[in-house]
Amino acid sequence: MWLPDEVFRPLGSRRVRLDVAGTDDVVLRTVHDEVTAATHRFGGALVGGPDATTGDLALTLTSDAPADGFVVGRHDAVTNVRAGSPAGLLHGLHHVVRLGEAAFADDLDERRVVPVNGIRMLDHWDNVDVHPVMGQVERGYAGGSIFYADGRVRDDLSRVAAYARLLGSVGINAVSVNNVNVHRTEARLLTDGLPDVARLAALFRPHGIRVHLSVSFAAPMTVGGLPTSDPLDADVQAWWAARVADVYDAVPDFGGFVVKADSEGQPGPFAYGRDHADGANLLARALKPFGGTVFWRAFVYDHRQDWRDRSTDRARAAHDHFAPLDGRFDDNVVLQVKYGPMDFQTREPVSPVIAAMPHTRLAVELQVTQEYTGQQKHAVWLGPQWSEILRFRPWGEGGRTVADVAAGTGADDAPRAGLVAVSNVGDDDFWTGHPLAQANLYTFARLAWSPDADPGALLDEWIGLTFPGTDPVVGETLHRVLDDSWRTYEDYTAPLGVGFMVRPGHHYGPDVDGYEYTPWGTYHFADRDGIGVDRTRATGTGFTGQFPAPWRDVYEDVTTCPDELLLFFHHVPWSHVLHSGVSVAQHVYDTHGDGAARTVENAAAWDAIAGQVPADLHARVAERLAEQVRSAHEWRDQLRTYVFRHSGIPDATGRTVY
Amino acid sequence: MWLPDEVFRPLGSRRVRLDVAGTDDVVLRTVHDEVTAATHRFGGALVGGPDATTGDLALTLTSDAPADGFVVGRHDAVTNVRAGSPAGLLHGLHHVVRLGEAAFADDLDERRVVPVNGIRMLDHWDNVDVHPVMGQVERGYAGGSIFYADGRVRDDLSRVAAYARLLGSVGINAVSVNNVNVHRTEARLLTDGLPDVARLAALFRPHGIRVHLSVSFAAPMTVGGLPTSDPLDADVQAWWAARVADVYDAVPDFGGFVVKADSEGQPGPFAYGRDHADGANLLARALKPFGGTVFWRAFVYDHRQDWRDRSTDRARAAHDHFAPLDGRFDDNVVLQVKYGPMDFQTREPVSPVIAAMPHTRLAVELQVTQEYTGQQKHAVWLGPQWSEILRFRPWGEGGRTVADVAAGTGADDAPRAGLVAVSNVGDDDFWTGHPLAQANLYTFARLAWSPDADPGALLDEWIGLTFPGTDPVVGETLHRVLDDSWRTYEDYTAPLGVGFMVRPGHHYGPDVDGYEYTPWGTYHFADRDGIGVDRTRATGTGFTGQFPAPWRDVYEDVTTCPDELLLFFHHVPWSHVLHSGVSVAQHVYDTHGDGAARTVENAAAWDAIAGQVPADLHARVAERLAEQVRSAHEWRDQLRTYVFRHSGIPDATGRTVY
Repeated sequence: MWLPDEVFRPLGSRRVRLDVAGTDDVVLRTVHDEVTAATHRFGGALVGGPDATTGDLALTLTSDAPADGFVVGRHDAVTNVRAGSPAGLLHGLHHVVRLGEAAFADDLDERRVVPVNGIRMLDHWDNVDVHPVMGQVERGYAGGSIFYADGRVRDDLSRVAAYARLLGSVGINAVSVNNVNVHRTEARLLTDGLPDVARLAALFRPHGIRVHLSVSFAAPMTVGGLPTSDPLDADVQAWWAARVADVYDAVPDFGGFVVKADSEGQPGPFAYGRDHADGANLLARALKPFGGTVFWRAFVYDHRQDWRDRSTDRARAAHDHFAPLDGRFDDNVVLQVKYGPMDFQTREPVSPVIAAMPHTRLAVELQVTQEYTGQQKHAVWLGPQWSEILRFRPWGEGGRTVADVAAGTGADDAPRAGLVAVSNVGDDDFWTGHPLAQANLYTFARLAWSPDADPGALLDEWIGLTFPGTDPVVGETLHRVLDDSWRTYEDYTAPLGVGFMVRPGHHYGPDVDGYEYTPWGTYHFADRDGIGVDRTRATGTGFTGQFPAPWRDVYEDVTTCPDELLLFFHHVPWSHVLHSGVSVAQHVYDTHGDGAARTVENAAAWDAIAGQVPADLHARVAERLAEQVRSAHEWRDQLRTYVFRHSGIPDATGRTVY
Repeated sequence: MWLPDEVFRPLGSRRVRLDVAGTDDVVLRTVHDEVTAATHRFGGALVGGPDATTGDLALTLTSDAPADGFVVGRHDAVTNVRAGSPAGLLHGLHHVVRLGEAAFADDLDERRVVPVNGIRMLDHWDNVDVHPVMGQVERGYAGGSIFYADGRVRDDLSRVAAYARLLGSVGINAVSVNNVNVHRTEARLLTDGLPDVARLAALFRPHGIRVHLSVSFAAPMTVGGLPTSDPLDADVQAWWAARVADVYDAVPDFGGFVVKADSEGQPGPFAYGRDHADGANLLARALKPFGGTVFWRAFVYDHRQDWRDRSTDRARAAHDHFAPLDGRFDDNVVLQVKYGPMDFQTREPVSPVIAAMPHTRLAVELQVTQEYTGQQKHAVWLGPQWSEILRFRPWGEGGRTVADVAAGTGADDAPRAGLVAVSNVGDDDFWTGHPLAQANLYTFARLAWSPDADPGALLDEWIGLTFPGTDPVVGETLHRVLDDSWRTYEDYTAPLGVGFMVRPGHHYGPDVDGYEYTPWGTYHFADRDGIGVDRTRATGTGFTGQFPAPWRDVYEDVTTCPDELLLFFHHVPWSHVLHSGVSVAQHVYDTHGDGAARTVENAAAWDAIAGQVPADLHARVAERLAEQVRSAHEWRDQLRTYVFRHSGIPDATGRTVY
């Protein structure tokens, strides 16, 4: 992972003054320990006290600096970092680490660096007990859980400590430590498990990170033995209040709850004729006295749909459920909305919920773990996707961005929240299965801090912090392999925004009709004439109408709908000519060839730097790239064959269609 | 299950003379105990000794009767059963039970009743350890194993004892007690597990049934620690000889081994450049001194096929592998051949291997457990399918039947073997999940004894033995629900012999393209123009050439190929007109409507006899019939939609196609 010792050399070889006015704080201790370790290693020194020199770097805690960030500058041969909080100082320290020697070269104008988002959170879908189908980490592709083994919290939590340090270095300030699908054992983390939750919190706390728990809405019954979980029932309210008090006894800085309710079989308020605001506010009111937050997920849809029912559209579900509730949520509720209306697909439109709830704190949820994007067998760096989502303007040119909505910027009194993502780490030696998937974790954290950052620059930042001191060809190769990898993946998988087409259940590899006749609401309706989902107001499900102008009209019209989302919004003939100038059928033939070919180029580029990176790392990446090549060709050939069998349109270039 | 006390009333209310000349034998003790119990219950008596009367029924062990069967007749008010062996006498006793009062009415001409097949075997795919994917019983749909629980042989084997009695009553004489996919724990039944195998054998022995074990070809390495499992290696041969000696020390009447080798990932002789005859003979020679038999499965094919490779045809595989080995197998090897070339589909041609190995003992393998035929959620009685297979004449009119080949009848010096099937029982309260699936177990056993029996008569026999004393409407309803149920199932599932179209992995429910792009070799090649697999010699894979005349020519020609196998042998346009007079597309629309409608009729018929059978039984069957109705309509609608989307041909009758 990032932060090998070597990246501390510039700082560690210098004299560092830590001016924290005698404050005792666990985060300041982290700052102190990092500086001490670095200076010991690289020959610098920690200097301090009233008589000491100013040093080369001064880290100062001061109330005239921003509370959650820092001010950094350099003049008179001293680099100054001034922060208004211990966490701000930690972030300032790591800012200096990222700058490297540049932090100690020319003068730097003073610059204020604060996080755009107050919430910068990672959710872990880790189960305490290994789930018979979903395993230890649901949708995890990096081995077992770093938190749990053998049905309980691990005795040895050194991996968690290392992970917390890594997250703290890039500004993550919240984690949830158990799966949103809360099973029996995990439901008891809230009660019997509190001593263990406290152990986890103690490891995250020194890095400025608060721990959260996913809870079951049915816990009053399944854990508490009450006859109901009705949010309007006084006993239920009292039960949650008592549980929350217990939690804060054990973990005074506990962050709050994450809740998946009335979703994919999880219990929720619908059972009592209550709505999601009733449900969320129940928990919010219990947490309120302690400063805790409820993260209430908007991922609610009918997962037992009948494929024969063409009137139901899963894409509509979150907006249908939640938009009418705007203004009903307490101020310590954050509505956690997946970036798209379906489910973390490679390409979806931005969820219309994001533009529909101006009076609700709304966090955008991304997926760092690559459930639908290659499962850490494929090198797919998602920075460009996330950046595109965050920069999307739901109200068109000149309007606020998705990032603005999440952060509460760009409008007066807009409610503030932030970004949440599902983590991709496990107990794998390389943390993330595919070593290059570490770039996704890094990029998410940095975008959570600065949503408008250039993702390419963040990629290079990650490369520099992870592979310091290597031949420049290593960085160039990593950049080349990853930079366009999301679009490459899109090229060889489900085309033109139609989504899914993966093997049901595990979601790896192609199965074009795999979800076509299932209860999941994920259809493409391909036949001999065409493909795609008509979600227009004119003739389809009306989903386009959930967007504000201009998108409600841009998406509605097949002539203005962007190619990359065409099949999400329209059912068109195979012969339909795209803006790109080729037919839908030919587009599949072409892009799938191009995408598969690029995986071969990437594997060759990686081969060429053998010997320039550690052998075990090189071997692991090479093995994954080989699987990506195999899988990409499988995707290419299945999609081509499927399209040809349906459309009868031959490939204009005469390539083999099996 | 069959044999409730009531069926013993005719015999039990009479005087029974058991004349066994003082022979002490565990099977004779069973006969004695059955007669004693029945006469005690119903007021008859066991009479005997030199001074006793002849009684109403005389059961006599005598060397002038057939060794494996019996002679039965009635005159002078005495029913006489004379058998040449204890097992023959047991079968004679149950023959009398089946006859009921008719056994004691009019005179009966003396009749010789002997089993057509020497081998009448049930294989159990039970795992000792619950397999993470396949569960306790692989392809089992009736709960857990009756043999194993908690990772070992059960302490309480009373269900096994009851099962052995049931099997003995219908002439089964061999069982294998563990899955042909032999995992780590199960491989040690051969060594550490022998005391437990002996316990099982002791329960089957009193019913004339010998116990067999499935073994792993790699056992010399995985269990024995040898460096190889090469069948020509002297140490390997010695290892097997020693293991077999141990087994017979523990189980003197041990039956032998069942082996799945070089099949779906199981180890086999190919790893050493040896062939299946080398592999089978290795084990046969170890077993030979003790009278044991090797059941060597012919289910060998490439399960890692590339769907893009159109030159490989899984249907060809068993014949390609085994036909050249005819004459190479030792005389205590039985080649166990699935009835069709694919895998227990609802409709397949008969395997051409059956006609290709005149110098090999060949057992035909059927599947009582309903893997592809509704998984004991659907009422599908397979008697007519099995009967049709057994009566099929691979060499045409006047030639021997499949049953002849298995039994070694109809030709001079033909090698003798018999029938094997995969059992469908588990620890379910009703033994088979779907109570009506008991009819399959019964029918298989009776067909193994008499392959030319009329299956409808066997169905009525089962009804009479399982529901004695009920209102006639019960039997009529059961007969109506089951009699045509196999063809009904065929009607609403994969059409015209094309097979598969099931959900991958678990094989339940429709997924038309589920296996289309997989490594399993099970494709239908549907496109906008047509569907089916060209297996002709003229333009396809040449599979038709594996059959002798006339079938090689009947199947080759699309105009003579039977409708029900058309898509197995030919790729035809959706508009191709069948012998039945309708197009392939219309056939799907029609048969799927008819089949689904019949499931509704069956459920209604069953509803009408509520109160006439035990309530728990009625409820269980009703629940399964309701699921069958749901599933049949799902099949109907998916298949219709799939065909319409591909063909564009509308249903001539204008029914809804979704």
